[in-house]
Amino acid sequence: MNEQGILHVPDSKYCFPLDTHRLVVRLRVDRNDRVEKVEVLYESKYEIYGKQRTIQMERKYEDRLYAYYETELILQDVRLAYVFRIWEDKKGYYFSEDGLSETYNFALGYYNFFQMPFINAVDIHEEVGWMRQAVFYEIFVDRFCSGGDITQKNYVSLKWGDKPKPKGFAGGDFAGILLKLDYLRNLGVNAIYLTPIFCSVSNHKYDIFDYHMVDAQFGTNEEFRQLVQEAHKKGIRIVLDAVFNHCSELLPQFQDVLKQGKESSYFDWFLIDGEKPDEDALNYEVFAFCSYMPKLDTSNNRVQEFLTDIAVSWIEKYDIDGWRLDVSDEISHDFWRLFRKKVKAVKKDCVIIGENWHDANSFLQGDQYDSIMNYAFTKACLDFYAFEVFCAQDFAWKLNHLLMRNTIQVNHMMMNLLDSHDTDRFYTSVHQNKNRVLSATAVMCMFVGTPCIYYGTEIPLEGGYDPDNRRCFDWDESHWDMTYRGLLQKLIGLRQEEVVQKGTIRIWAASELLWLSRKWNDEEIVLIVNQSGKNINVVFEGIIVVENHFDNREVSMQSNMRGNLLSEGFIVIKGSSNTIQLTEDRKALKN
Amino acid sequence: MNEQGILHVPDSKYCFPLDTHRLVVRLRVDRNDRVEKVEVLYESKYEIYGKQRTIQMERKYEDRLYAYYETELILQDVRLAYVFRIWEDKKGYYFSEDGLSETYNFALGYYNFFQMPFINAVDIHEEVGWMRQAVFYEIFVDRFCSGGDITQKNYVSLKWGDKPKPKGFAGGDFAGILLKLDYLRNLGVNAIYLTPIFCSVSNHKYDIFDYHMVDAQFGTNEEFRQLVQEAHKKGIRIVLDAVFNHCSELLPQFQDVLKQGKESSYFDWFLIDGEKPDEDALNYEVFAFCSYMPKLDTSNNRVQEFLTDIAVSWIEKYDIDGWRLDVSDEISHDFWRLFRKKVKAVKKDCVIIGENWHDANSFLQGDQYDSIMNYAFTKACLDFYAFEVFCAQDFAWKLNHLLMRNTIQVNHMMMNLLDSHDTDRFYTSVHQNKNRVLSATAVMCMFVGTPCIYYGTEIPLEGGYDPDNRRCFDWDESHWDMTYRGLLQKLIGLRQEEVVQKGTIRIWAASELLWLSRKWNDEEIVLIVNQSGKNINVVFEGIIVVENHFDNREVSMQSNMRGNLLSEGFIVIKGSSNTIQLTEDRKALKN
Repeated sequence: MNEQGILHVPDSKYCFPLDTHRLVVRLRVDRNDRVEKVEVLYESKYEIYGKQRTIQMERKYEDRLYAYYETELILQDVRLAYVFRIWEDKKGYYFSEDGLSETYNFALGYYNFFQMPFINAVDIHEEVGWMRQAVFYEIFVDRFCSGGDITQKNYVSLKWGDKPKPKGFAGGDFAGILLKLDYLRNLGVNAIYLTPIFCSVSNHKYDIFDYHMVDAQFGTNEEFRQLVQEAHKKGIRIVLDAVFNHCSELLPQFQDVLKQGKESSYFDWFLIDGEKPDEDALNYEVFAFCSYMPKLDTSNNRVQEFLTDIAVSWIEKYDIDGWRLDVSDEISHDFWRLFRKKVKAVKKDCVIIGENWHDANSFLQGDQYDSIMNYAFTKACLDFYAFEVFCAQDFAWKLNHLLMRNTIQVNHMMMNLLDSHDTDRFYTSVHQNKNRVLSATAVMCMFVGTPCIYYGTEIPLEGGYDPDNRRCFDWDESHWDMTYRGLLQKLIGLRQEEVVQKGTIRIWAASELLWLSRKWNDEEIVLIVNQSGKNINVVFEGIIVVENHFDNREVSMQSNMRGNLLSEGFIVIKGSSNTIQLTEDRKALKN
Repeated sequence: MNEQGILHVPDSKYCFPLDTHRLVVRLRVDRNDRVEKVEVLYESKYEIYGKQRTIQMERKYEDRLYAYYETELILQDVRLAYVFRIWEDKKGYYFSEDGLSETYNFALGYYNFFQMPFINAVDIHEEVGWMRQAVFYEIFVDRFCSGGDITQKNYVSLKWGDKPKPKGFAGGDFAGILLKLDYLRNLGVNAIYLTPIFCSVSNHKYDIFDYHMVDAQFGTNEEFRQLVQEAHKKGIRIVLDAVFNHCSELLPQFQDVLKQGKESSYFDWFLIDGEKPDEDALNYEVFAFCSYMPKLDTSNNRVQEFLTDIAVSWIEKYDIDGWRLDVSDEISHDFWRLFRKKVKAVKKDCVIIGENWHDANSFLQGDQYDSIMNYAFTKACLDFYAFEVFCAQDFAWKLNHLLMRNTIQVNHMMMNLLDSHDTDRFYTSVHQNKNRVLSATAVMCMFVGTPCIYYGTEIPLEGGYDPDNRRCFDWDESHWDMTYRGLLQKLIGLRQEEVVQKGTIRIWAASELLWLSRKWNDEEIVLIVNQSGKNINVVFEGIIVVENHFDNREVSMQSNMRGNLLSEGFIVIKGSSNTIQLTEDRKALKN
């Protein structure tokens, strides 16, 4: 056994409560160990010295290096003590806080068993229930749709449809989004993430100078209220962008500091090295290197109150459903704890989604965000579909790995995405290969967590890095690829299947294909993805739900379905993954 | 390389700030890997794509399975991005969030480098400075000293000196402690941890019914104030026991619930399954199985306010210096966050020490406690000195392991102990072998963190498990072992050496001896412990600071000191560990 590969961390993603009487326990081992089974020996911490219950763990996830065992315990007495027993070559080894041992002394266990000393309700990370049904659509407001007469908008400098420039304004607004709510609903979308909407001099509005007013370019506060109300009527939720790491230099508080320096009562709202901010010397902290975006000091109590009051206000006054947190990783944990308390107090199911591009586990303990924009998922899809450095096995391992970064609750609230206003468009990254966009979308819609479609993906829109990824939506339907769009719509529709919302997930590779199964009660839904470069003959029992490039199908003698899953294709089947058979069809190789 | 053994977790004990511009980075690898060196490649996250700085890490700690590399980075731009480079067989491997690789693409690094996105001042775990000089003494108040006439105390049921019974009262009080402050100061003690002192019907007073009044058996609130004042004058700090997990059934709020059931406005202060608490059915949560100690629901806001107000009040009104937190692991994280905020707001250097017997890392992130009672250290000492399941190598590995459980700041605030009111006395555990008590105390006083001497250890007092570990202090000096006591005093004195307070620590085993070195600037102090069962001849340059069983010494030709370190002995030397030479002296084997 590779003892160095074994990992368990109590009171972490390796042991976390689902409610006051249920918790999940995980153990990580080297994937290549000859582990036969893993058990949890557990009992109330005051009784384990004398007796232990035993439950066998399930080997549920495998990444490149590790296998992960998981089980759920239902407890009356929630003062849990436990050790693991790992079986290899028919011999059981104990694993406790003191590591691996051949015997374990339960009488002295109080020194070194693992424990969940008590499940306190307030510490439980509660899932925002609607996230399991959610399909997000990210709108870069200036470029999505204009509801009014663009020629009347004197700030517009970018002709609708022209290639975007960093500082161009195209004229999108709330009225435009309002017009398109039915369009979005029809696409299967039921949640919109809007890039910033508050007063700002830029088109992206990530430099805000008034957090209580929407920017006049987009409309009025009243129009925004109407948008939320109409969206809610149509079953669409609205999530706003909280730009709290930094503000615009035009924020009155910063202006005051510019004028008065240390005399300003707002001096300590910012991080200034000197008597006053000097835009040339850049002697104050900013976003990236942008002197016009001074960083707010979220260690400061008054800044904390100022910003969290804003967060609460937009919920109370406009009934928004969530906040996406810009540059959230540069903001203090302490701030996010207060933010969560105040936000959840006014709307318990308001979702809080951080923008951390990296493993954000320290922000996802239940006391700060609910989840993050899952850019690690993005990167995995790029590695498989765009950069082609991943084979199906690598991709399966990585997806498993990502699920093991956080708790089950966090996974279900993850905002999974292929692209955003901060990346190249996925369609462009895969060199305009629509099959790959569809295939990746299939994975995203079947994965745990909520998919987020970047506006225009459904046409599809092209776009390289900023500002090219912020092109105007092309509303001329004659330019749309309706076949592609129909398939995308079907994939989005998968999210409304109960088995996809609730089912346990398993992801693996076999015969160079990626397999993703969700199971709930007796139902199973299986996605098979072929990026192998060859066609594979598939025989199965079940119903085809969505397919792309599953050709030459026939119903076989035994009422099985049979056909070729072509390379660059995928198929979603309601049926058991156990009954699916494959034959490589090398003769039918395409491309 | 054992890839499965490599571990780094950003924003954790593996990467944590010391202040707004300094942070510590650690990497764990398999101890048996042929690693030649480990480097951190780092830069501001907005610049790392184009350039990287390199710093070599130091291999500082080794436990049974792993080696730990550590380095400190001093940063101007604190938006840190980094990856590791691990050299094996003259080949460098990169280690990022995506694991080990032979090459690393810094241009795409924003997807998978490690990062410390920003060091926010409020998130830094600040050390309580005085803990580096502190030597704690735990007093079980009823058994330490009576300042008045015991015959006048009608509640006394245990004759001073008789074997304790679970429910006996012996008459110790504040006046007694006051009388002994000089005694304690003379012993080298400068901090006292008092077991609970508030109103309670038991001798241990862990069942409190009035948190604002000290128990009349111990004195008055005014006498307590006087005790703190006098202690402070003598440079002794006072830490109280916060029993916030549970209370006495006599607490008025619980009494109200007993009477009124769900009608009581305090009903939700407790965790009751039913209409009202039923002491026979035990339908409510309690401490252990004690119906008279109902558990308080620390998820409840009013309970949180009630208890944290108490914590603040004793600081504001009586100027106490810290709280030791009873059964802290069963209390919510959320509660401890509020507790810390409120306590630190009124007294920044008030220390907060949890009672978690297990790895408490999730409570030690800087937002909850400062440290814990280090029972894992206790267990390591027991395994080496009492149970004899550890050889010097095992002990060295375990001590290193414990240092790697938490950040440097937490380590310096750890309350290290050999025993307490909740364990057998160490002296009894090692079968009255005073040399072992002294040797273990030497390790404790040289280790990182503050030692805590259980009252009476210096005489020494005997005692098995509760109630035997709570015997009355024997103030008849003719019963004391003065040689032993003098050595203990010298060991306690080590804590006032700057090199012990500030020096980096290294612990290892060689020639069956345990070595512990502290280094600060040009100074080094070295402890060598011999529990090998044989004598070892030691030659060194330097000054002997404390010794036990270092016999037949002579000054050699080269002005070196030479002598036999007998088994069960130890020696503390001011001098370099590099110049110490050893010769086994098997002929002189004793015992």
